[in-house]
Amino acid sequence: MNIRTIDWKNNKVRIIDQTKLPQKLVYLNIGRLKDLWQAIKILRVRGAPALGAAAALGVYLGVRDYSGNDWPGFKRKLEAAAKYIAGSRPTARNLFWGIERACEAALQNKEKPVPEIKQAVLEEAKKIMREDASSCRKIGYYGAGLLKPESNVLTICNAGILATIDYGTALGVVYSACALGKKVKVFSCETRPLLQGSRLSAWELSKQGVDVTMIADNTAAWLMANQKVDLVIAGADRIVANGDSANKIGTLNLAVLCRHHKIPFYIAAPSSTFDLRLKSGREIKIEMRNPQEVARILLKKTVAPEKARIINPAFDVTPHQLISAIITDKGIIRGPYIKNIRKTLKEK
Amino acid sequence: MNIRTIDWKNNKVRIIDQTKLPQKLVYLNIGRLKDLWQAIKILRVRGAPALGAAAALGVYLGVRDYSGNDWPGFKRKLEAAAKYIAGSRPTARNLFWGIERACEAALQNKEKPVPEIKQAVLEEAKKIMREDASSCRKIGYYGAGLLKPESNVLTICNAGILATIDYGTALGVVYSACALGKKVKVFSCETRPLLQGSRLSAWELSKQGVDVTMIADNTAAWLMANQKVDLVIAGADRIVANGDSANKIGTLNLAVLCRHHKIPFYIAAPSSTFDLRLKSGREIKIEMRNPQEVARILLKKTVAPEKARIINPAFDVTPHQLISAIITDKGIIRGPYIKNIRKTLKEK
Repeated sequence: MNIRTIDWKNNKVRIIDQTKLPQKLVYLNIGRLKDLWQAIKILRVRGAPALGAAAALGVYLGVRDYSGNDWPGFKRKLEAAAKYIAGSRPTARNLFWGIERACEAALQNKEKPVPEIKQAVLEEAKKIMREDASSCRKIGYYGAGLLKPESNVLTICNAGILATIDYGTALGVVYSACALGKKVKVFSCETRPLLQGSRLSAWELSKQGVDVTMIADNTAAWLMANQKVDLVIAGADRIVANGDSANKIGTLNLAVLCRHHKIPFYIAAPSSTFDLRLKSGREIKIEMRNPQEVARILLKKTVAPEKARIINPAFDVTPHQLISAIITDKGIIRGPYIKNIRKTLKEK
Repeated sequence: MNIRTIDWKNNKVRIIDQTKLPQKLVYLNIGRLKDLWQAIKILRVRGAPALGAAAALGVYLGVRDYSGNDWPGFKRKLEAAAKYIAGSRPTARNLFWGIERACEAALQNKEKPVPEIKQAVLEEAKKIMREDASSCRKIGYYGAGLLKPESNVLTICNAGILATIDYGTALGVVYSACALGKKVKVFSCETRPLLQGSRLSAWELSKQGVDVTMIADNTAAWLMANQKVDLVIAGADRIVANGDSANKIGTLNLAVLCRHHKIPFYIAAPSSTFDLRLKSGREIKIEMRNPQEVARILLKKTVAPEKARIINPAFDVTPHQLISAIITDKGIIRGPYIKNIRKTLKEK
């Protein structure tokens, strides 16, 4: 089944509304920046790589209607759009990277007439989408080599097709290994609070014909203690210079469990997820989301007492010491990360 | 607020229907064994200590209507009732212990007329309830000493008033520490799939005026990494001779996280939870529950793709090496468990 998470179609951003999955596969066509902002905020479109494309397309939506023909005026509009999108979600590096690339494309063309600058921004967004699809294939290629001919993979959240333009990062590795004829069985942590593991990963894996079993997040340790997991692969939202990695809340749990049970723990992410300006994970801003996501299941059925106090961080940070390797589009990076991340990312 | 989880009232077993919490506090009066069996099965009444009382009361319900006046006939009825209740849930030791105590009471009185044997069974069930209330107070007393004047406690599932006759085991320690004037803040893992942590623990703790914050189970590692947890206390369902302990699924996750973050991990349970006939946790039978508990939230809202494959173990086993101490009604037991469990349980 062909699934396209985000695309530019008929002058609009076309996304799958992921809040409707797994019950319904609904596409949305978004023509206004504020609707895209909202779609990002409530996770109609999510996943670090997909957010890179969404952000760049958002910048384009923000400047498209600028009616002047002057660079200074255009630049103000551009900066306003960039700032607005940047306020949607704070943790995923790719979102900011997408904004920066779109703005840089404008800057590179600032001497040209405004319609051409606009076009350059749109072309850059399209380029980001093409590059991401290619990156995921490379991640899949490199990562597949880490799997034995028969492998049980545990994953969390959704780092698959639905988190990227195509193919996925952590799940891209699974698809790639399957394509090579390896027998892969996937365990998908349901991933409370927003259940991306059950709603999205179990859905897309079964659509792709992969053997997938869902578990409550609490069951991960039991699976490992019973020798049912050979390796864990998770996507990432921001990886910093020393290899510390911000990922979906609960990923740190899995990394610690892997260390205890002597199971390899891998992160899979494109170059665009790296943020080398930050030295350690302590500097990563963690998004705190609406407590109602925990108090109510998918913001509907209430499961907590009224007025219950709740903490709902969307991500946690896995220290680099717990990461066996980082699977990227430039190859597999192992420790010492502080040296090898820079080295690998520089190589083209 | 006075909460009574299970009681014998007006010739019926009166329980709080815990599937209705936190929205409604509903009491059920159960007069038939098969209704009690069902209530145990679907967790209207749950928690290892409460199940001890429920099982003994169930034995009484099973023999109460025996119309003969002969011991052999009564004994057959008794054994049938015992076997029937034993089939409700396999993991909690207390359930079997409650059945055994009720049967033993009958046996001790087998020379007496049948109405008196019946009365002996009922009295034994009442005695179990009195003893459990007293055990929990002792667990609270011993455990409170482990908390500093200001302590942040993380817990999972519900090992509180609602899991016992009164006061609770893990939460009994919290109540006891609060009564001694210690400032205790509790983090309650929501405890998927059945959400006892949010529906029950957050509810009863706030009713008792304790400062409680709910988290998704995935947030536990984040809390520990951010130094917000001083200790973890969990209840137990079966503790075997070497100290291995079966607890609510997800407890092993917490034990491993505690080891990694150098945080004490305690189990709180009455003597009746120990099963010294089993040598190690590998021998404990783990209840596998309905996958729909994971696929659908509280068996209502569907969150998984149709026909998704799901594994849903109700418990995991925490190896004794990860347990800092076991808080019991006979005192605090530390390793070497193989020696100290027997020693402590023998002391009266």
